[in-house]
Amino acid sequence: MRLIGLDPSLTRTGWGIIDVKGRDIAFVASGAVRTNSKQTMAERLGHLDCELGKVLEAHDPSEAALEQIFVNRNPRSTLALGLARGAVFVSVARRQLPVHEYAPATVKQAVTGQGNASKERVAALVRALLPKATLETHDASDALAVAICHANHARSHARFVITGGCP
Amino acid sequence: MRLIGLDPSLTRTGWGIIDVKGRDIAFVASGAVRTNSKQTMAERLGHLDCELGKVLEAHDPSEAALEQIFVNRNPRSTLALGLARGAVFVSVARRQLPVHEYAPATVKQAVTGQGNASKERVAALVRALLPKATLETHDASDALAVAICHANHARSHARFVITGGCP
Repeated sequence: MRLIGLDPSLTRTGWGIIDVKGRDIAFVASGAVRTNSKQTMAERLGHLDCELGKVLEAHDPSEAALEQIFVNRNPRSTLALGLARGAVFVSVARRQLPVHEYAPATVKQAVTGQGNASKERVAALVRALLPKATLETHDASDALAVAICHANHARSHARFVITGGCP
Repeated sequence: MRLIGLDPSLTRTGWGIIDVKGRDIAFVASGAVRTNSKQTMAERLGHLDCELGKVLEAHDPSEAALEQIFVNRNPRSTLALGLARGAVFVSVARRQLPVHEYAPATVKQAVTGQGNASKERVAALVRALLPKATLETHDASDALAVAICHANHARSHARFVITGGCP
């Protein structure tokens, strides 16, 4: 089973792909899609959708996972996050991938064994679990963490939420 | 020239299409895409994208217009609006339609001649300008108002913002 973890943001959306076979997980690829703040919102989100589409096309994961988000104190940040997340959901839903959402504490727990682990601790454990990963950015590490979390849950629960797409 | 005006919202996204020929405008179609709050976010945004795609397919507008939004005091509402708006941008950008954004006061000014007109006044003028329109919902009326606003601006400025799409 191949999974993609996603960490949406308007400026940089992290993505990370792993293969899961029984209890083993293996790194496949990771990266981030950046958008240009000088472009219009339509251009930025069109670019995000397009580049993410290329990643999905190239690696063909069968499921996707994202961290749940909670509203930010800064309404502008909340709006920007909503815009990016809306674009990512559509990008993934168009390919009819099941999408799973996990609370941040669940992701930290799955990767480090502790629900309140620091970002650095999560990144260190991602590196340890996926030694072949080239983690240039935090975004990719966060995206791989949610993919690892989903791998654990998919093994133990095997219940999937099927997304929309055109009936 | 055929234009689509859009009024994105997570529960109901209004849309309205008009034809513009010289100084004349004519109603083509309008409606709203509703999403089911019992579904997952991926399902809801996938459905919005899918249904909006059908509208774009059926009526083939050449440009799109939306009202600019300002952040809401309620962060949950702001996030929901961002999610819906992100999905709508991607839906439109995938068809490489130019997308235009107008401030709410500019839309009111274009339709009623007054930047601070009430919602009721805007709806009444939309009905007067497009007598064939069947305005079942406020959403459709608001969407047609932004389409009318864009028709006025397109005539006088003829400068278009081209959206992203895959290069």
